Amino acid sequence: MDIDRANQQAVDRLVAARPLLTTVATARDVIPGMRDGLLLHAGPPIEWPRMSGPLRGAILGALIFEGMAETEAEAEALAASGEVAFEPCHHHQAVGPMAGVISPSMAVYVVENPTHGNRAFSNLNEGYGKVLRYGAYSSDVLDRLRWMNEEMGPILASALAQTDGLDLRALLAEALHMGDEGHNRNKAGSLLFLKLLAPLVSEVAPNPASCTRILQFLGDTALSVLNPVMAACKAMADAAHGIEGSTVVTTMARNGTDFGIRVSGLGDRWFTAPAQTPDGLYFSGFSAEDANPDIGDSTITETAGIGAFAMAAAPAIVTFISGKPKDAIHATLEMYEITAGEHGHFTIPSLDFRGTPVGIDLRKVIELGITPRVNTGIAHRLPGVGQVGAGLVRPPMEIFQQALEAFAERYAP
Amino acid sequence: MDIDRANQQAVDRLVAARPLLTTVATARDVIPGMRDGLLLHAGPPIEWPRMSGPLRGAILGALIFEGMAETEAEAEALAASGEVAFEPCHHHQAVGPMAGVISPSMAVYVVENPTHGNRAFSNLNEGYGKVLRYGAYSSDVLDRLRWMNEEMGPILASALAQTDGLDLRALLAEALHMGDEGHNRNKAGSLLFLKLLAPLVSEVAPNPASCTRILQFLGDTALSVLNPVMAACKAMADAAHGIEGSTVVTTMARNGTDFGIRVSGLGDRWFTAPAQTPDGLYFSGFSAEDANPDIGDSTITETAGIGAFAMAAAPAIVTFISGKPKDAIHATLEMYEITAGEHGHFTIPSLDFRGTPVGIDLRKVIELGITPRVNTGIAHRLPGVGQVGAGLVRPPMEIFQQALEAFAERYAP
Repeated sequence: MDIDRANQQAVDRLVAARPLLTTVATARDVIPGMRDGLLLHAGPPIEWPRMSGPLRGAILGALIFEGMAETEAEAEALAASGEVAFEPCHHHQAVGPMAGVISPSMAVYVVENPTHGNRAFSNLNEGYGKVLRYGAYSSDVLDRLRWMNEEMGPILASALAQTDGLDLRALLAEALHMGDEGHNRNKAGSLLFLKLLAPLVSEVAPNPASCTRILQFLGDTALSVLNPVMAACKAMADAAHGIEGSTVVTTMARNGTDFGIRVSGLGDRWFTAPAQTPDGLYFSGFSAEDANPDIGDSTITETAGIGAFAMAAAPAIVTFISGKPKDAIHATLEMYEITAGEHGHFTIPSLDFRGTPVGIDLRKVIELGITPRVNTGIAHRLPGVGQVGAGLVRPPMEIFQQALEAFAERYAP
Repeated sequence: MDIDRANQQAVDRLVAARPLLTTVATARDVIPGMRDGLLLHAGPPIEWPRMSGPLRGAILGALIFEGMAETEAEAEALAASGEVAFEPCHHHQAVGPMAGVISPSMAVYVVENPTHGNRAFSNLNEGYGKVLRYGAYSSDVLDRLRWMNEEMGPILASALAQTDGLDLRALLAEALHMGDEGHNRNKAGSLLFLKLLAPLVSEVAPNPASCTRILQFLGDTALSVLNPVMAACKAMADAAHGIEGSTVVTTMARNGTDFGIRVSGLGDRWFTAPAQTPDGLYFSGFSAEDANPDIGDSTITETAGIGAFAMAAAPAIVTFISGKPKDAIHATLEMYEITAGEHGHFTIPSLDFRGTPVGIDLRKVIELGITPRVNTGIAHRLPGVGQVGAGLVRPPMEIFQQALEAFAERYAP
């Protein structure tokens, strides 16, 4: 068996995927296997008793949002009762940042990859402050979700219907030339997203006040495009999954308790270990003691060759996650050591337009003892407090060891 | 006399200026000294017989736009008759890219610098293709100018009236962290501009079709913000002008025939010599033989410490004007050699957030034999053909020699 060839095929498929944002729809109508009574969450599988604060908070909020509970106490009892099913977003072609909770009634972005015919989904970005993804579930959080569902979502769907789909790969390629790395820094990408949507929203909005609200909301959030970008990365990574004999990592995700990976040649099996706490800069008044262990599906960006892997494109980000601009260059250079290829569409000007490192090769991680870098936001460990910082984290080495052992067993001659 | 102290004062004033975009108004109503029968143009003073093709074309277009002539032949006869006055934009606190023609009826951006109480003006950016600034004056060019005057200008004025002025210094500072250098590359700045204006335009536009047209137009043009940025730089440079004993260059401008500079400590006297032809990359089908000599007031950006002086912030630009990303770093490093200070607000991530080089010191230019770098678009030498490339140009050394001699005379003990 030729692992290198299998990995090349995986990377080629990942790079050839061309994710298009085609619409916004209700989760239960479009996400395969979504059903009433099911909540999706970030990271590998986990049940209620082991969930961390921010994930629990988001679950409670989603149960109230869905009308399955009226109060926090009711929601908590229901969540603990076993009557609600919890499954990873990743089991349903979906991804969500931080807690990553998607409930059946929520509006989601739909991304299509015409190259390989697969689709991916993400929830909509809520902006800053108290938000469900950090485990907040107060009435203003739920009101904003309802506004996103009832006003913004349908109007974005109408706007997108005027297009053949927004080419998110092209958008990302441009954003990487504008100082984004696509995970923690999506400033340029979000502005490009706004630029593409603004005239369409203006055209289809039922009244100027709706239009103004949406343009203001999208413009105020430098992460607006993170969620469609994550769905785009999911569509790309899924295209690379299931290649017989490939050691390329096609999922990295955290649920706030465990960090999990999946591997192209090893089917849908997760390899997990306790998630670590990010190293980074804390907002004023917070410290590492407040930090929840690493959480969210946004590591799909690094899986697809951007985020921390494209740090060299984003020297300005070091003010946000700590370090010097030259560390950003070194971060990307290090990731070339553990990847199987270089991206043909995502390039880094300051490295003479070299393609980003893409396709984490399990074997190289183990051989070199270098785990993937991940840029991340840091959640408070209690539900609803929100973001307390941002920084860098690495997955635990043992999950790569487990995966390599499983690979050896599965492909034993 | 302490030249260093005078130069420090000039740089301090330039950096302390805080240009705010406050409104859009009709040139004759706001530009000091603007009157019927007067056309402003880029660069130092020039009369009709010596004007180059693109400037002549823009003059003809402006005469037709103003209703002073109906045909090209009529306009040409009028321009040559001596009945039309031509004066530099720079004599009227104004700047314009390329031909830089501003006629009395044109809508202009108004920038105020509350720190020092001065104002500056620029025309509105016309986007790509056939445009007056490159000397085109066909009916579609004039129709677009009329639309800008009649629909976009008043709506932008109403939108800006909802604000306390858009802080263009803050916008530029952010854009330099997003891969812009502020002269040839204004992609990020134009998106930030759109983001700030979009909800305001949506709020004040009389109907959705108007709103859609404006958002589409601003979004389609990656140079939308160039003109307000130029007016901002003019407001900053003017704040540094007129400092007794200062050798800081406060104007660099070209009219397509001559390159001219003015110096803070030497009043309103121009030092001029024939403009050179830029070195750069030509669009398919064009070559250096098609190029007009250097033209436009957009060198106000370099005068204010951005543009080619901030090249290190914009590694992606080298694909457009030729060179390697490391040349972009070297360009900025070279400009520190001939400047009197470093900018306190405009910083470059890849140089560890060092301030951009600002305040060209005449003495250093002469001593080191290093002329300022200028990024520029390249105009076809015939009117109306448009942009044929982009590249780098330097002012002729002799104008710095003339200025230094004048300085020696003026300040002789």
